[in-house]
Amino acid sequence: MNKKLSQKDLLGKVEKNIKKNGLIKPKDVVIVAVSGGVDSVCLLDILDKLSKKLHFDLSVCHYNHKLRGIESDKDELFVSKLARERGRDFEVARRKREPCNSEDEARELRYKFFKKILESSRGAKIAIAHNSSDLTETLLQRVVRGTGIRGLKSIPFQRKNFIRPLLPHTRSEILEYLNKEKIKFRIDKSNFDPSFLRNYLRKYIVPKLIRKNPKFEEGVYALSKSMERDYQFIENETKKVFEKVATITYKKVTISKDDFSKLHSSIKFHLLLMVLEELGVKKDVTSKHLEDVISMISKNVGNKSLPLPHSLRVKLFGGKIIITRG
Amino acid sequence: MNKKLSQKDLLGKVEKNIKKNGLIKPKDVVIVAVSGGVDSVCLLDILDKLSKKLHFDLSVCHYNHKLRGIESDKDELFVSKLARERGRDFEVARRKREPCNSEDEARELRYKFFKKILESSRGAKIAIAHNSSDLTETLLQRVVRGTGIRGLKSIPFQRKNFIRPLLPHTRSEILEYLNKEKIKFRIDKSNFDPSFLRNYLRKYIVPKLIRKNPKFEEGVYALSKSMERDYQFIENETKKVFEKVATITYKKVTISKDDFSKLHSSIKFHLLLMVLEELGVKKDVTSKHLEDVISMISKNVGNKSLPLPHSLRVKLFGGKIIITRG
Repeated sequence: MNKKLSQKDLLGKVEKNIKKNGLIKPKDVVIVAVSGGVDSVCLLDILDKLSKKLHFDLSVCHYNHKLRGIESDKDELFVSKLARERGRDFEVARRKREPCNSEDEARELRYKFFKKILESSRGAKIAIAHNSSDLTETLLQRVVRGTGIRGLKSIPFQRKNFIRPLLPHTRSEILEYLNKEKIKFRIDKSNFDPSFLRNYLRKYIVPKLIRKNPKFEEGVYALSKSMERDYQFIENETKKVFEKVATITYKKVTISKDDFSKLHSSIKFHLLLMVLEELGVKKDVTSKHLEDVISMISKNVGNKSLPLPHSLRVKLFGGKIIITRG
Repeated sequence: MNKKLSQKDLLGKVEKNIKKNGLIKPKDVVIVAVSGGVDSVCLLDILDKLSKKLHFDLSVCHYNHKLRGIESDKDELFVSKLARERGRDFEVARRKREPCNSEDEARELRYKFFKKILESSRGAKIAIAHNSSDLTETLLQRVVRGTGIRGLKSIPFQRKNFIRPLLPHTRSEILEYLNKEKIKFRIDKSNFDPSFLRNYLRKYIVPKLIRKNPKFEEGVYALSKSMERDYQFIENETKKVFEKVATITYKKVTISKDDFSKLHSSIKFHLLLMVLEELGVKKDVTSKHLEDVISMISKNVGNKSLPLPHSLRVKLFGGKIIITRG
């Protein structure tokens, strides 16, 4: 009784997510990225069950990072078996050279593989097993390291050809589903190494907070969705301002000081960030740096200049703010 | 050597905060609210040292919550002695009836006392010892319970006649200052009761996160400041929209469905929140409720109605959204 309910529960909810957000349409070609771990095995099983009902084509891909020797090869074997059992095509790529150094680098390689697949099967979609427990870890990680509104917004359900049907669901819902369905998955022990902040949060912090509020992860998910909306609005408004007040030439952005001074302080910060991105800088400029720039501009003391990371420089000259990258 | 440096450090930084944010001006009458605990004793000492240099008048007030029997009376005595030693006037009020039940209620009573003081000494300012460790606890508490951008914004340096000169500083900076200055303070043991979420976070969560990033509290402070700016911008834009599209009559707000549909989804949410506040509802309406309202409006299926908490009701009728409180 309970078994059926839970199965129907997550399966039904994911079906609803897919329809409501238009993630998969009839005749779509969907390739599910499966590591062999709990999240992606669950996603594979659910999409496998939905593919007939929602009329889409499903296959499986796997990137073997070769990070954990024989264990990595066992993961690959496990996933290939899962695909075969379900009669699904299976595509695999293996890291050839030395293992990569960081989670970031590993993700980059994985996405390179995904993009290659998408190039060779135009119009296909890659389904990723991101869920609200991942999201909670990511957001907390950013809060611990220091962040702003952009770091608190959710990953979207769909970005280009990547879809995330499990996004609103927690890992405990996923585990419950797999247990009830008696589906096996692989355990990646490196996920437990607490020297990585994400793993530390997963092991020592999140469970404590869930004990204080069983709906904690749902709350973080809702927060991230609201931040996504709010940031999108601010970003739209900043873009309008950018187009109106900024002049771009090679490695140089110019803004009239008068125009800048009239802006709301929120837009001042986001506009400066947009200018820096225009100049190719997405990292290492802190809110302290931006505060210093805004304070210099507001002080109105003639021609001034302020250096920033990545050879950036903000100059005040003849009523103009000139931002260059040398 | 170290002693002088640290003293100068926090003292100098607070002086800078006060000047930069215009918290205290020459000839101001400042009343510092002192519980006897670490934060407020530090604030008293610092303001005492600055009052001559910045030419303001300083006195001390204390609210005896009578929550901890004899310990509460000892707190009062301790604070009155501190004031006397520094030659400062001392004003006290004592809770007369049964002890209050919650932190919220205690705060309400305390602020009532503060407001009474402000009424009898017009133009005076009350200095509160809020700091970035308090802020971190507050923000985490809200994240655990579920929140949006409004719950993540900072307390302001100044709201009406309340000023917070210690706001950017952490409790460890404050403790370091008191240790170096050899200043004693009272310990409120109820602050350690981990059945209160705030105390639990202070004891079990925040220290772990600081170990992962020693600048964690500074990061949360910067986050809260950026959220304050971003929310203020969104609030301004929402107010403009509200004035343009909403018609208010007694317990009823009407908005044209066409006007509403053209808005950015962020503004839709904030506009609905503003309407509910206009109708006297500030709590219990969740983002799920708002999502349902917005989804009902967007579905365009003729006349519909949706109940919300506090006898609120959203109706669609003849191209209009009608929000009432019965």
